[in-house]
Amino acid sequence: MGIAKYLFYIAPLGSLLGLGFASYFYRQMKQRPEGTIEMKKIAEYVREGAIAYLKQQYKVVAIFFVVAALIFAFLAYVLKVQNPFVPFAFLTGGFFSGLSGYLGMRTATYASARTTYAARKSLNSALRIAFRSGAVMGLIVVGFGLLDISIWFMILQKVIKVANEAEKWHTITTTMLSFGVGASLQALFARVGGGIYTKGADVGADLVGKVEAGIPEDDPRNPATIADNVGDNVGDVAGMGADLYESYCGSILATAALGAAAGYGYNGVILPMVIAGVGVISSLIGIFAVKSSEQAQQQELLKALYRGINLAVVLIVVFASILTYLILPQNRWVLGSILSGLIAGIIIGKSTEYYTSPDKEPAQSIARSAETGPATVIITGLSVGMISTAIPVLTVGVATFLSYAFAGGFEDMSKGLYGVGISAVGMLSTLGITLATDAYGPIADNAGGNAEMTKQKPIVRERTDALDALGNTTAATGKGFAIGSAALTAMALIASYLEEVKAGLKLAGHTVLKYGGQSIDLMKASIVDLIKFYDIHILNPKTLIGVFVGAMLTFAFCSLIMKAVGRAAQQIVREVRRQFKTIKGLLKGKAKADYASCVEIVTKEAQKSMVLPSLIAVLAPLLTGLLLGIPGVVGLLVGALTSGFSLAIMMANAGGSWDNAKKYIEMGNLGGKGSEPHKAAVVGDTVGDPFKDAAGPSLNILIKLMSMVSVILAGLIVRYGDLLEKLVNLISKK
Amino acid sequence: MGIAKYLFYIAPLGSLLGLGFASYFYRQMKQRPEGTIEMKKIAEYVREGAIAYLKQQYKVVAIFFVVAALIFAFLAYVLKVQNPFVPFAFLTGGFFSGLSGYLGMRTATYASARTTYAARKSLNSALRIAFRSGAVMGLIVVGFGLLDISIWFMILQKVIKVANEAEKWHTITTTMLSFGVGASLQALFARVGGGIYTKGADVGADLVGKVEAGIPEDDPRNPATIADNVGDNVGDVAGMGADLYESYCGSILATAALGAAAGYGYNGVILPMVIAGVGVISSLIGIFAVKSSEQAQQQELLKALYRGINLAVVLIVVFASILTYLILPQNRWVLGSILSGLIAGIIIGKSTEYYTSPDKEPAQSIARSAETGPATVIITGLSVGMISTAIPVLTVGVATFLSYAFAGGFEDMSKGLYGVGISAVGMLSTLGITLATDAYGPIADNAGGNAEMTKQKPIVRERTDALDALGNTTAATGKGFAIGSAALTAMALIASYLEEVKAGLKLAGHTVLKYGGQSIDLMKASIVDLIKFYDIHILNPKTLIGVFVGAMLTFAFCSLIMKAVGRAAQQIVREVRRQFKTIKGLLKGKAKADYASCVEIVTKEAQKSMVLPSLIAVLAPLLTGLLLGIPGVVGLLVGALTSGFSLAIMMANAGGSWDNAKKYIEMGNLGGKGSEPHKAAVVGDTVGDPFKDAAGPSLNILIKLMSMVSVILAGLIVRYGDLLEKLVNLISKK
Repeated sequence: MGIAKYLFYIAPLGSLLGLGFASYFYRQMKQRPEGTIEMKKIAEYVREGAIAYLKQQYKVVAIFFVVAALIFAFLAYVLKVQNPFVPFAFLTGGFFSGLSGYLGMRTATYASARTTYAARKSLNSALRIAFRSGAVMGLIVVGFGLLDISIWFMILQKVIKVANEAEKWHTITTTMLSFGVGASLQALFARVGGGIYTKGADVGADLVGKVEAGIPEDDPRNPATIADNVGDNVGDVAGMGADLYESYCGSILATAALGAAAGYGYNGVILPMVIAGVGVISSLIGIFAVKSSEQAQQQELLKALYRGINLAVVLIVVFASILTYLILPQNRWVLGSILSGLIAGIIIGKSTEYYTSPDKEPAQSIARSAETGPATVIITGLSVGMISTAIPVLTVGVATFLSYAFAGGFEDMSKGLYGVGISAVGMLSTLGITLATDAYGPIADNAGGNAEMTKQKPIVRERTDALDALGNTTAATGKGFAIGSAALTAMALIASYLEEVKAGLKLAGHTVLKYGGQSIDLMKASIVDLIKFYDIHILNPKTLIGVFVGAMLTFAFCSLIMKAVGRAAQQIVREVRRQFKTIKGLLKGKAKADYASCVEIVTKEAQKSMVLPSLIAVLAPLLTGLLLGIPGVVGLLVGALTSGFSLAIMMANAGGSWDNAKKYIEMGNLGGKGSEPHKAAVVGDTVGDPFKDAAGPSLNILIKLMSMVSVILAGLIVRYGDLLEKLVNLISKK
Repeated sequence: MGIAKYLFYIAPLGSLLGLGFASYFYRQMKQRPEGTIEMKKIAEYVREGAIAYLKQQYKVVAIFFVVAALIFAFLAYVLKVQNPFVPFAFLTGGFFSGLSGYLGMRTATYASARTTYAARKSLNSALRIAFRSGAVMGLIVVGFGLLDISIWFMILQKVIKVANEAEKWHTITTTMLSFGVGASLQALFARVGGGIYTKGADVGADLVGKVEAGIPEDDPRNPATIADNVGDNVGDVAGMGADLYESYCGSILATAALGAAAGYGYNGVILPMVIAGVGVISSLIGIFAVKSSEQAQQQELLKALYRGINLAVVLIVVFASILTYLILPQNRWVLGSILSGLIAGIIIGKSTEYYTSPDKEPAQSIARSAETGPATVIITGLSVGMISTAIPVLTVGVATFLSYAFAGGFEDMSKGLYGVGISAVGMLSTLGITLATDAYGPIADNAGGNAEMTKQKPIVRERTDALDALGNTTAATGKGFAIGSAALTAMALIASYLEEVKAGLKLAGHTVLKYGGQSIDLMKASIVDLIKFYDIHILNPKTLIGVFVGAMLTFAFCSLIMKAVGRAAQQIVREVRRQFKTIKGLLKGKAKADYASCVEIVTKEAQKSMVLPSLIAVLAPLLTGLLLGIPGVVGLLVGALTSGFSLAIMMANAGGSWDNAKKYIEMGNLGGKGSEPHKAAVVGDTVGDPFKDAAGPSLNILIKLMSMVSVILAGLIVRYGDLLEKLVNLISKK
């Protein structure tokens, strides 16, 4: 331990600093004028809709959580296949994730009108409000995440009494992993429900407004326009926040468990927490560095944002070098693992930017294909999305190899897996500021909506549009980052799953592992021993079937979500048509639309539709485990991870590229707005909406959640799983 | 051996019977009148185009084959990491596959006009010609496949002299596997080149003909119409034939190798060949049973087709029961494995039919979504395609488990893998007749084109349309069958890959395997020993990275093919526009179109575009092996297999469903032909074309070919692979 004992406090310190500044930025933002009465009114509609949605969602989630906690309590106290702390840790994980989503979204909905009002003055003041408000979300997520981790870690150290040092860290870290399950389940609902909400409203509003009635986006005459703006908040702010909250906690917790497994003891367990802590502090400094002159134009603003991120990255590199040296002197090269993750995140972000930017060849090739109609737009867009998987996958591959090698994996596999875990922590260490640049996008988007609905002067809309365009670039980077970190986190989770299996074996009363004529003390068994004990090699048919099913589930899951978006959109179309017909003077702008009814429709549809996909994500690992045992579960997780990663990137980038191909035409190219190519490009954009903002991002969660569910059910599966082989053996012995 | 020694001759007997009847059916068809002068002329255009294309393709392929054979000769004779028979076996595999494609396509192009002419008389006579000509293709594929296998088997038994019995079968079977590589490479070019050709011509002709000029499909005024009809032959006949030739040979050869590995000796090696032999004979009987009355309507014809297939299936079950009992008395339950594969093939076919039939909910849901425009058509279609992966994947999963369990895999893994292999053989045993029902589709399609171009009476076109519709149903089943068998075959190939690795180790001079403190005689080492020796477990980062990359490659590969289709289509559009402009009176039907120029354009484009995807398929296993060694290669293959399987089904079924959604509207639903929903549905159909007939089917090949390439490079990788770990070890030792 030594000095590490004190260095640990960097984690809670970072957490508290993050939360403190989040609250400071929030109050700072609230002090700014919210604008005209009109502006306030629109903002209030959106805020009410968003909060009403979140309340509704949290009600459904609460039922799920209560049921799940009861089941976990049953597993822990009656079947005794689980640690007694699990039900509580599970609940706190869910609670803090939900709280982060709520607070972040609340901030965003307060910030949008203020951004519009500030845009009357200058681009810079508008950026300042939007970005600082986005930073609230970023800091809340990392703050609460690290807080929950630090508190549990301190409590469990006091509470868990185990004679053996190695066993102690094993027990503490495997217990803590279960609070990731709470965060994960919360994230699932936020991403899936939020995604269906936001894209149902968006696609519906576009189909009936832009295409049928021929009125512009965000036009106050369109009854679905408020729902559309609400969607940006519940999907892109709350959903993205919960997604990354999960990755953040998951990567730290999984790495801690792998640190225990690698035999690093206390120091290995706290290193990911400490790195995360300095990450928060560095992000904070980066956030303060985002500044530009009052006359700054778009390009300068982008530079200002990147300056902030780059500063944060440099600081993290410096801090991480020192801390790794101090905390893990026997394996300093772990620093290489951290940096591999950090750099991989940046490369994936850049690649996403390339494939989706309107200034680059991919989006422009889609735009050109619009000249031969919508069919070629779709073919080209899918083709762009598919090829865009190459760089991220190869990057993750290289990062995995390097982080494994740097950490000494070729001598000791457990150490290598620790390296893979901590590379995910490295990638996510910049989350405070990356999420800030990401969450600011929807605020800018809403600000634009507000300007349109309150009929501001063109210059105001131009400025919010400039902010929005900036937001699209950073959002693309953010999406790549979210997927990349999900992949590395999931890999770490799969590895740490085997630690949970070990815990399950222990609870089941095993003390030794016997395989291949050997007999090993369970508590001394490494991950490799478990792999061999369970025969988790790739040609074990149970594993192989698992991989097949895991890959398939990613497709089935996307199908359900896209169908739900389609259903929600159809309902919006019908409702808006009804209003256009029955509310006299609405289309002439003389009567008011009934915004609330559209909000209500998508809220209900999103709630209803998120249940089935969520159940699949939860039940698949359970059923696979019961039927095919541990090798089946690991196969399932690897299949979902590898297929899901490519599929998620494909959907995100195809969607982003379609969006910007349309924008490229709207800039006046190829005939401009209203031309035939433009109409064809709109079709691509509409298809891209559920791709990039509903199905694609939900895959991030699927990948991680299935690992998390497996983690929490490990004890159950160890005891009662693998029924099919048991059955075969029973029959063949007769 | 015993009686098995005689039973082996069922294989060459089946082969010769198949080829004999193929020649009989061919001559029978040729004796029928080819119709009017007009009909003959059109048929000749198509035939010339098709043969010209194939010649061009074979030229490119020949270069590839010569280069590859030289490389293999270098590996075999200079580096000595390969068996000396490999270069020759490789060439014969490629030669027979190419010959099958050529003869089958030639038959198809002779049959189409004859089918049109017969359709003047009755539906039944038209079906008879088309189906019997399709049967030529089916019988040629299984006949030549089995011939090549039988001959090599007989030769190698004489030539290879090894003291040890077990080693003898190991050497013979691993040598034979290399001739699968030739078939595989040939199939790649046929599927990829043919797919790009057929869909480039089809999409181009549709875009410029139906959409721009508003003239119907197959209209003689459209200069691309001959190219479109040529495409059906080169893509759907020659391409599909080569694809299944590869699966057929691959599954038999892989199972033979696994039989040797399982220690079954001669009997285990010949069982798959014998099952294939009775499969040909059963298929023949089934083909003769396809009969219906002269007045038969569409439904009765479908019944007649199914009667033939069902009869073949029943016969195979009976024969397989007896033969398994006689040849493998010590493990009769292998029969269960054969039946698992056979039944799985039927279920997957039915599932494909459900998801693509115009009478069923999925296609109709797409049609309904056409009411809100093309964007919802695409979203719904993709969603249908994605969910349609569930049944096939679960079916393959169950079949894998059952065939593994039946064969005794839970006692001895090698035996289980043999079971998986022979289930693929079981699935493919009906190939003679399944491929007949499949290849007859494009013949009917071409017959319809001929009727249109020669302006036959409506009743003739109605009859060819009825045949075509029937063909669409059987083609859907056939596609599911092709993908399902590719998956099982690939699994068997991956398992048999490890046998090749063993052969490579032997060539490299190893005699014992050392791992985990044990030391095992190499020739006695089982597949499990090799897995453990190479640490091919799923959390080995090399394996895991392989899985990631394999999954990604399936997306990248599809992207390249779809892009190529788009490019070819654009060129056709330009050429047709040029002809419409420069050839006076063409659109009024007063001047003749220049068909040849369109044929030439797609031929060139297809040839050019097939090189890059093909290189990827060949180089990926090589590079992965060099960098990440055997565990990386196995990971790559599993990743490509599992992801590619779902992706291929998704693309095939989405494409088929879009096609039939359009047909459903054309039947007069939702406004019928020419309505807005119809236009939206046409967009879906156009997107579906490269999905279902170019990219999707090419994935079948990718899955198998990468395994085959790995097989042939095993010796090289054993000796020179795994460079990255070697490098890391070098650095860290300094």
